[in-house]
Amino acid sequence: MKDHVYKLIELTGTSTLSVEDAVNNAVRRAHKTVKNLRWFQVVDTRGDIVKGHVDHWQVTIKVGFPVES
Amino acid sequence: MKDHVYKLIELTGTSTLSVEDAVNNAVRRAHKTVKNLRWFQVVDTRGDIVKGHVDHWQVTIKVGFPVES
Amino acid sequence: MKDHVYKLIELTGTSTLSVEDAVNNAVRRAHKTVKNLRWFQVVDTRGDIVKGHVDHWQVTIKVGFPVES
Amino acid sequence: MKDHVYKLIELTGTSTLSVEDAVNNAVRRAHKTVKNLRWFQVVDTRGDIVKGHVDHWQVTIKVGFPVES
Amino acid sequence: MKDHVYKLIELTGTSTLSVEDAVNNAVRRAHKTVKNLRWFQVVDTRGDIVKGHVDHWQVTIKVGFPVES
Amino acid sequence: MKDHVYKLIELTGTSTLSVEDAVNNAVRRAHKTVKNLRWFQVVDTRGDIVKGHVDHWQVTIKVGFPVES
Amino acid sequence: MKDHVYKLIELTGTSTLSVEDAVNNAVRRAHKTVKNLRWFQVVDTRGDIVKGHVDHWQVTIKVGFPVES
Amino acid sequence: MKDHVYKLIELTGTSTLSVEDAVNNAVRRAHKTVKNLRWFQVVDTRGDIVKGHVDHWQVTIKVGFPVES
Amino acid sequence: MKDHVYKLIELTGTSTLSVEDAVNNAVRRAHKTVKNLRWFQVVDTRGDIVKGHVDHWQVTIKVGFPVES
Amino acid sequence: MKDHVYKLIELTGTSTLSVEDAVNNAVRRAHKTVKNLRWFQVVDTRGDIVKGHVDHWQVTIKVGFPVES
Amino acid sequence: MKDHVYKLIELTGTSTLSVEDAVNNAVRRAHKTVKNLRWFQVVDTRGDIVKGHVDHWQVTIKVGFPVES
Amino acid sequence: MKDHVYKLIELTGTSTLSVEDAVNNAVRRAHKTVKNLRWFQVVDTRGDIVKGHVDHWQVTIKVGFPVES
Repeated sequence: MKDHVYKLIELTGTSTLSVEDAVNNAVRRAHKTVKNLRWFQVVDTRGDIVKGHVDHWQVTIKVGFPVES
Repeated sequence: MKDHVYKLIELTGTSTLSVEDAVNNAVRRAHKTVKNLRWFQVVDTRGDIVKGHVDHWQVTIKVGFPVES
Repeated sequence: MKDHVYKLIELTGTSTLSVEDAVNNAVRRAHKTVKNLRWFQVVDTRGDIVKGHVDHWQVTIKVGFPVES
Repeated sequence: MKDHVYKLIELTGTSTLSVEDAVNNAVRRAHKTVKNLRWFQVVDTRGDIVKGHVDHWQVTIKVGFPVES
Repeated sequence: MKDHVYKLIELTGTSTLSVEDAVNNAVRRAHKTVKNLRWFQVVDTRGDIVKGHVDHWQVTIKVGFPVES
Repeated sequence: MKDHVYKLIELTGTSTLSVEDAVNNAVRRAHKTVKNLRWFQVVDTRGDIVKGHVDHWQVTIKVGFPVES
Repeated sequence: MKDHVYKLIELTGTSTLSVEDAVNNAVRRAHKTVKNLRWFQVVDTRGDIVKGHVDHWQVTIKVGFPVES
Repeated sequence: MKDHVYKLIELTGTSTLSVEDAVNNAVRRAHKTVKNLRWFQVVDTRGDIVKGHVDHWQVTIKVGFPVES
Repeated sequence: MKDHVYKLIELTGTSTLSVEDAVNNAVRRAHKTVKNLRWFQVVDTRGDIVKGHVDHWQVTIKVGFPVES
Repeated sequence: MKDHVYKLIELTGTSTLSVEDAVNNAVRRAHKTVKNLRWFQVVDTRGDIVKGHVDHWQVTIKVGFPVES
Repeated sequence: MKDHVYKLIELTGTSTLSVEDAVNNAVRRAHKTVKNLRWFQVVDTRGDIVKGHVDHWQVTIKVGFPVES
Repeated sequence: MKDHVYKLIELTGTSTLSVEDAVNNAVRRAHKTVKNLRWFQVVDTRGDIVKGHVDHWQVTIKVGFPVES
């Protein structure tokens, strides 16, 4: 069996709804150019505040996918 | 253009519902005394457990806002 | 009053729904064998991706409970 | 039951005696202006040295307390 | 000579007296079920505060011991 | 000799010129309300970019000062 | 499909040969009592020295496995 | 309003002059291929030494920019 | 002499043999598209386990190379 | 006024009594060869266990002192 | 070609001017006793404050140099 | 029994062969001037790359040894 190599890219997804939606927005966007995304890990969770309420959740993730040999 | 200075304060919001609600509870409370909150970053996520279920989500955040010069 | 001692165990809960559900799945499972779970702290948040969407949220937590003396 | 919000402040207590005394000095001082302190966590332990002996223990802690809603 | 394998468990000891006493409470408790404890490392030092004074020191440690082969 | 207690506050200074200027802007601003600032430590260095050039340096520091007993 | 829960345990494997052998010693030992080990992550790499040469490699790992529901 | 997604890339800029110049060299270079760079964060500051003097400052940064949807 | 700028990419190499082979697999794969790789740093070492033995070593590295100006 | 340069050395002090005594043992020993020690910071706190009780506290510190120009 | 071994020492340089000057002061001082310094990495950036202005920048670095075999 | 004091020094060993060989090169070199080395811990693993292959493994370790009282 072959030894795979994976690449990790770092993305910040944003969402007005939730942490989960911010991650999925980043994953969905990356999927447009890289079809075989495999896993992610959360690196940082932030957000901006407007009038005393979280406006956008900003979740930075690393996303891994195999690179073809 | 002026160089701004921002202050960061650390808060722990709690909620029986979700991580997002815990953060918004902390932000809403801080907004009562500081009107111009701008951003937050999650520092720690914990919670207490009652009868095998998460009772309160406890999310510690840093919140930043400009201080008037 | 007695000085208590607590034990911490590390678990990864998974869920197709949310971070919160993944944590509660881990807590619920641990509750089957340890009845007096008291608190948890999130250690790591990851997930696997299928077809450009998060398939399972994988949240690693430490769970604390008192050990009887 | 209400969702509480807590504030954390950072203090460095010092003592010629011990780590514990340095923490209690910081807590006692904070108690003069904030009556409902609940918990602390040690962030850093340092000290200055005079003639080959620790002169003051300098222990930096975060102290948490509920903010009234 | 044989290659040993060690297990590490994580415990939080508490004490009204000192950091050292909190660690020893955790070690003494673990010793009741595991006789060959070898070493520990401090992971976190916290405590609760009552009336402006540290009530319990809460010291989280990892404790290592050999597992028989 | 008395055991002092110090408070640490967290600030983000900004400057179009340099890291040093951003720190001094934060320190100068804090000095308006707290006269006895003693030391600082850099926590984070960031900045925003406009047209391929750093526009503002954003340096987050902790600033310590003695609290009167 | 079911949401799985995993447990992580921490072990230190030792070996006179290599980092890899130290890890495999820990994994092999854990396998005697837990049959479905799935993954590990290296936490710390240390060793003892005898006469100017590494005597034992000591590699601390976390090992994860599913817990039956 | 749309939820944006950002990509972060990691660069090491070098300069014989200063930390700031090293960062701007990295930003200026990245700007040649990515026009909408928005922010950076310093990850690491190093340098090489020649004849007892810093020869090149080597500053590693992460640079963020929006990816078009 | 010119001030160089370097880019860092993150890769996970895998190998059934060793940590070193996993790193070299990642480096060899990256070399197919980027000829002037200069250095790497290990970020994380993990692996999967099959039948009580490490099956694949998974080593995540950052790899740096100069970008032409 | 001159710009001073300081050197930091790393030591592990041990004691059967307490964390404080372990630090002072390290400081006292260093003082035998370096007279102008100024400050220390705690890096790690560990210990060995004998018969279910902490035998030696092992506290690793960095100690700083000015180097003459 | 021979395998080199390098030693790293830790120094804190200070300067009233800048971060860069503080680093160069430390490097220049170390160069008096060790001629073949090769590289440094910044570990910590602090400073003392006098009358609302940074008085001395205190930058802690690790400096590496080859040890002759 | 006496309370020992240990010193830790930081070294980077290099090797064209393996991580283990790089560590042993550093340990062997340190042994030439310090006979009673006791333990090491790995701090960082890096390397340089030549023609798409790791040329030298560069492993930074801390090495501890007792200092005579």
